[in-house]
Amino acid sequence: MKVNRDLLQWVVKQNLQEELLRGNFGLEKENIRVDGNGMLALTPHPKAFGNKMENPYIRTDFSESQIEMITPVFQTISETYDFMETLHDIVTLELEEEYLWPSSNPPVLPKDEEIPIALMSDPVEDQYRMQLAEKYGRKRQLMSGIHYNFSFHEGLLKKLYEGLHTDSSYKDFKNQLYLKVARNLLRYRWLLVYLTGASPVFNKTYLEQCVQLSDHFDDESYFFPNMNSLRNSICGYRNQKPIYVSFDSVETYVRDLQSLVQAGELLSAREYYSSVRIKPAKGKDFINSLLQDGIAYLELRMIDLNPLYKVGISKDIMQFIHLFLILMLLLEDEPFGEIEQNLADQNHESLIMDGIQGKWFGAEEHFITLVERALGVLETMEEMLQVITPDHESFTRLLEQAKQIIQHSELNFASIVKAATQQSSYLAYHMDKAKQYAEESKASGYKFLGYEDLELSTQLLLKAALKRGIRFEMLDREENFILLQKGDHTEYVKQATKTSLDSYSTVLIMENKVVTKKVLERQGIRVPQGRVYSDLNTALGDYEMFRDQTIVIKPKSTNFGLGITIFAAGGFSRGDFQKAFEMAFAHDKTVLLEEFISGKEYRFLVMGDEVVGVLHRVPANVVGNGLHTIEQLVADKNKDPLRGKGYKTPLERLQLGEAEEMFLKHQGKDRSYVPGAGETVYLRENSNISTGGDSIDLTDEIPDRYKRIAVKAAKAAGATFCGVDMMINDMEKYASDRNYSIIEINFNPAIHIHCFPFKGTNRKADEKILDLLFGKL
Amino acid sequence: MKVNRDLLQWVVKQNLQEELLRGNFGLEKENIRVDGNGMLALTPHPKAFGNKMENPYIRTDFSESQIEMITPVFQTISETYDFMETLHDIVTLELEEEYLWPSSNPPVLPKDEEIPIALMSDPVEDQYRMQLAEKYGRKRQLMSGIHYNFSFHEGLLKKLYEGLHTDSSYKDFKNQLYLKVARNLLRYRWLLVYLTGASPVFNKTYLEQCVQLSDHFDDESYFFPNMNSLRNSICGYRNQKPIYVSFDSVETYVRDLQSLVQAGELLSAREYYSSVRIKPAKGKDFINSLLQDGIAYLELRMIDLNPLYKVGISKDIMQFIHLFLILMLLLEDEPFGEIEQNLADQNHESLIMDGIQGKWFGAEEHFITLVERALGVLETMEEMLQVITPDHESFTRLLEQAKQIIQHSELNFASIVKAATQQSSYLAYHMDKAKQYAEESKASGYKFLGYEDLELSTQLLLKAALKRGIRFEMLDREENFILLQKGDHTEYVKQATKTSLDSYSTVLIMENKVVTKKVLERQGIRVPQGRVYSDLNTALGDYEMFRDQTIVIKPKSTNFGLGITIFAAGGFSRGDFQKAFEMAFAHDKTVLLEEFISGKEYRFLVMGDEVVGVLHRVPANVVGNGLHTIEQLVADKNKDPLRGKGYKTPLERLQLGEAEEMFLKHQGKDRSYVPGAGETVYLRENSNISTGGDSIDLTDEIPDRYKRIAVKAAKAAGATFCGVDMMINDMEKYASDRNYSIIEINFNPAIHIHCFPFKGTNRKADEKILDLLFGKL
Repeated sequence: MKVNRDLLQWVVKQNLQEELLRGNFGLEKENIRVDGNGMLALTPHPKAFGNKMENPYIRTDFSESQIEMITPVFQTISETYDFMETLHDIVTLELEEEYLWPSSNPPVLPKDEEIPIALMSDPVEDQYRMQLAEKYGRKRQLMSGIHYNFSFHEGLLKKLYEGLHTDSSYKDFKNQLYLKVARNLLRYRWLLVYLTGASPVFNKTYLEQCVQLSDHFDDESYFFPNMNSLRNSICGYRNQKPIYVSFDSVETYVRDLQSLVQAGELLSAREYYSSVRIKPAKGKDFINSLLQDGIAYLELRMIDLNPLYKVGISKDIMQFIHLFLILMLLLEDEPFGEIEQNLADQNHESLIMDGIQGKWFGAEEHFITLVERALGVLETMEEMLQVITPDHESFTRLLEQAKQIIQHSELNFASIVKAATQQSSYLAYHMDKAKQYAEESKASGYKFLGYEDLELSTQLLLKAALKRGIRFEMLDREENFILLQKGDHTEYVKQATKTSLDSYSTVLIMENKVVTKKVLERQGIRVPQGRVYSDLNTALGDYEMFRDQTIVIKPKSTNFGLGITIFAAGGFSRGDFQKAFEMAFAHDKTVLLEEFISGKEYRFLVMGDEVVGVLHRVPANVVGNGLHTIEQLVADKNKDPLRGKGYKTPLERLQLGEAEEMFLKHQGKDRSYVPGAGETVYLRENSNISTGGDSIDLTDEIPDRYKRIAVKAAKAAGATFCGVDMMINDMEKYASDRNYSIIEINFNPAIHIHCFPFKGTNRKADEKILDLLFGKL
Repeated sequence: MKVNRDLLQWVVKQNLQEELLRGNFGLEKENIRVDGNGMLALTPHPKAFGNKMENPYIRTDFSESQIEMITPVFQTISETYDFMETLHDIVTLELEEEYLWPSSNPPVLPKDEEIPIALMSDPVEDQYRMQLAEKYGRKRQLMSGIHYNFSFHEGLLKKLYEGLHTDSSYKDFKNQLYLKVARNLLRYRWLLVYLTGASPVFNKTYLEQCVQLSDHFDDESYFFPNMNSLRNSICGYRNQKPIYVSFDSVETYVRDLQSLVQAGELLSAREYYSSVRIKPAKGKDFINSLLQDGIAYLELRMIDLNPLYKVGISKDIMQFIHLFLILMLLLEDEPFGEIEQNLADQNHESLIMDGIQGKWFGAEEHFITLVERALGVLETMEEMLQVITPDHESFTRLLEQAKQIIQHSELNFASIVKAATQQSSYLAYHMDKAKQYAEESKASGYKFLGYEDLELSTQLLLKAALKRGIRFEMLDREENFILLQKGDHTEYVKQATKTSLDSYSTVLIMENKVVTKKVLERQGIRVPQGRVYSDLNTALGDYEMFRDQTIVIKPKSTNFGLGITIFAAGGFSRGDFQKAFEMAFAHDKTVLLEEFISGKEYRFLVMGDEVVGVLHRVPANVVGNGLHTIEQLVADKNKDPLRGKGYKTPLERLQLGEAEEMFLKHQGKDRSYVPGAGETVYLRENSNISTGGDSIDLTDEIPDRYKRIAVKAAKAAGATFCGVDMMINDMEKYASDRNYSIIEINFNPAIHIHCFPFKGTNRKADEKILDLLFGKL
């Protein structure tokens, strides 16, 4: 193994280190669905994931019970990993009493013929799966793993192409570059298999001939000694016979594959289960795309699901593989004909059967072990990294870990899994992990990892979208402005509820309180009657008109309720009326006189013709225990991980700032006050969730007639998505229709407060938005 | 005549003077359409006014050539007058080579049977008009006039009702009150006829028997001596026989009318051509509404079209009539049976035949003239006003004028019109007036009188709306937020182009330049490529990428072009690139690098599938004459009445402020510079109309392919109404599609600049909005 020093030096000279360390990443992984006992789930693919042929993120693979999760392409490992974790969370949360099996090796299986093959409602796909089932057996097809997709930074490739002044076209240049990397990967894949293998033990229900040949810890947990990846072994998912395909050029690669298909060795080109695949940009008609457009990226297929990690892989491993790929690019180009492929396969086999202590097959004449060779590879990597990025601590740490694992085979993933399995059993160990990861998914399931900078409403909408296979694109991330696309149907959405389904005039109506009132009144909907005054005299002139009504007089903008007078009974004096206005005018140049509406305020979330959720919002508060101060109680309440800041978590943290102190002061309290047991102390006047208020879901409790009023109000404004804020005086009162009043219609209602209320049920407002935009599932 | 002093004192005591002086006003008026020679127009009612049965503002009356204009109800005379003037302008501007005849007496008429009766496509209406034609002759039906509708302030009526503690219901109370006013009006109507009469002369083509009985100035101008209103005479528009209907109660009124209809004296109740009508709120089924809902207002029908005023009436006359109505309310209630009605008719007749010197028929035993009586009425009015509003100058002036006119009959309108007619001829005089008023309408026709506080775009839209009979309502006047309604179809519109036809997401796309670019690019539409930088180093790192391109580097917000560098040719040095960024960063924290787009900017106004107008906007400028300074040239250009401030006129005034001075300074000029003859000096860099730029309409000049691109851009964003700002490099170039670029899409394009460009044609963007909202006419 030799680094091409000229190439490396040129990269440094051109100052391309940064570009070299960049790349484009994607992950695919499969997990088998199991029931609570670790038995293969025989239920159909969940309907929530939409059409399994069309969902680009969540599909089935060979079996109906085998869920495949696919990330889009990202420019960083972290984004790719986060997206996969979110996919994993989404899938997990959608499973009812089922779990994602965390091992590459299958769970407890029924008889071969009882394993459900995925029904794709596409005769070609269905036939292909049937043929595979016959050829390999269904059990083998249930082997699951991770595919790691990678391409180099386009800027790097272009500069390499320009700098190396080749005669070939850019496409050919790129093909040659990726083929070189693919060849080197195939050559050294045994090392990646060693470092990522995590499927050492399997269940007795797996293939009979494999079970018979192997050892076992107990009556269900079987294994081969020294084998860290059953999946990469002869018992795993491989072509029936060794197959040789040229990696010299795209043309020879294609030629060889087509010969194999014509000879009946392969059902189709995609049956070639190479550890590394060269891939064109377009997925459909893979052979022609490859010839026409060239190689766009490489697919590494030898990576096991790692039961030690919820996602089946860690960011460290992803990082290590990336560095490994860079090394493969920078190595000297060596011949890789049939003989060299054979040697590579022998090294792979040696690793699988004898482990890292196995023999290295290669040019060296004396016997060396894979350990020695592996350490040599790490040394070369280290040298390379020294040149590219001398002081990269995390890279150094990764190499050091790999070295340890090579030198101490009990430290590798497979050994750890095997030891743990021996302590319990194959089934018990993996079910424990499955359940543990399901719990973790539940805890963090509200957020979209990697998109936590977005408002939670948008995060939820995006997750709901990808769950049903709607693609998305960020148009303006800071503005929570996204594009959703399903087939030819494109929707532009801002802040989750600003969509094409509301017209501009509808939004303008809602934006303007005066106009909203007029529009609602036209439809006979009750709104608080009132007047606006900018001088005292005009106001006093209206005394006669209002003296017998119940009214509120308040400054246009209120702080802590200062300057507000409520005449809850009519028949007040002219003097009191005047005093109220004088007080209000002392706080604002504009003073409102409004009909006094008693009762509680409710937020009705209307979507289309439906009230999706109803919340009562309670101002930020703490409930005493007779022991702790308000300050301590606030801190306590804020420990809830669902409380955060800026609409990015289901609830907002309580504050103890100036506003709250003022409000406490008005109650004769301060932060050191100790409320009695059960005593509720409010910290603010307003009940906004954004200032730490509690959201109480009352969707099922609110009588239908108020829901009908809310929908009518939304319709009056022409709104599809809106939050109707309604005061209701005495909920059960039927006699009068004067016991409600609509305060406001909000054209951008937060949806997360209905999905994750302080108390209550997830009303799936995110799903409803998609139902309305794209049609129900 | 006696004022009811108790009533007057009570009003003062209750401090109700203000309420007494308020009221609700409406005007209706008819004008005959004539051709350029003063011949009755035989063309159909203009299509632009929509359905003549449904348009609430512009209809036909008896004849197809008789346009009726109707204002809504307003609380001030000024609003009512302004609205009527606007209706008059709208109608005038829609007539092609026709004019509105400014006299109550008809223009040159053809034979009776050639006068076109209005076709209403309603068999009942058509039959009624045919019967009238037979009964009265078509010529008589062409008499036109003004109806003045009035009701008292509801607050006043309520307080009167409460204060007077009557036993009757509020409805009956109101009926009695209005009947009293009606009776008094009928009694004293001769005075109003004297003060408003303006139809002393008529054409020889009018009714033969009238022509034969009368004198003439010349062979076409006929008159009766002392008669100031032919229309109110026996030759005018009256019931064939004197008809007596009781004004004692609504019930007796209705009973009498119904008897007359049953007896065949009247074709229907509405054939009762009383000078004063009592009217219910609802127009349809007048008799039943009157019985059921009572009197809502009074209609005064004796007012002539006054050729001395464009609108046919003046605000002063309207004001005087209002004061007269108040007097009628405050008079003592006197009996008004058949005898009294007869006396009232005699006084009317006396005025008509003998003028103000005629005999007064009444209780007095000695002979007194109408002059004496009239002066008595004025005295009573003055007394009344002294009590209500002692120092009201304009009222005093009105009374003084009336007094003069009574004392000097040569000063009344009819005398003035008659004298002028004698100088020229009936036809020539009125045609001169008609043409003069048409010119005036053209000059001020862009604005909506009484609504000049609105943006001109909204004024235009409102005018277009009422032209075709779409009702409107102000929802939020300051925000230019209106409601348009036609039948059941309601539209909410803000600032003319913010409507229900654009979706919220479309507006959000247009609002965000980054997103706009992305959306347009997705559709293959060219936009300026570019990057945004917030630090110098990142910017410099991109030198390689851009060094061969033509680019602009500029601070995010530019002032007077400072900090902008244009690299109009590629291949610039790294040093120059750096200098450009340093300069830009000196002006703003954010710096944009954009592809340099050469060419001129055009505003495409897209509505639906159509480009309605294309403007090239030229920055504010003056063109020298070798004599005047820039300052003088600016002042000169600003004299154009179409130039105003704040989007309320077709063009904006040029400024000579700091910005302009800076810009001139950069050109080495200042305000005292004298540009040579034909030299254009630009005052600003930007070409916005709002800073005094000139709008040049190029709708017909721009090749269709650019219009198609503009429409495609609008569609890409989903927009119905938008302004597409496009740079075009070389308009005629076909070879490349790279010679244009879309800079921006504006979701609230001003429409007035396309209706009243600095140079070019009215593109009727206002009409197009309505076509799209309500369907084409």
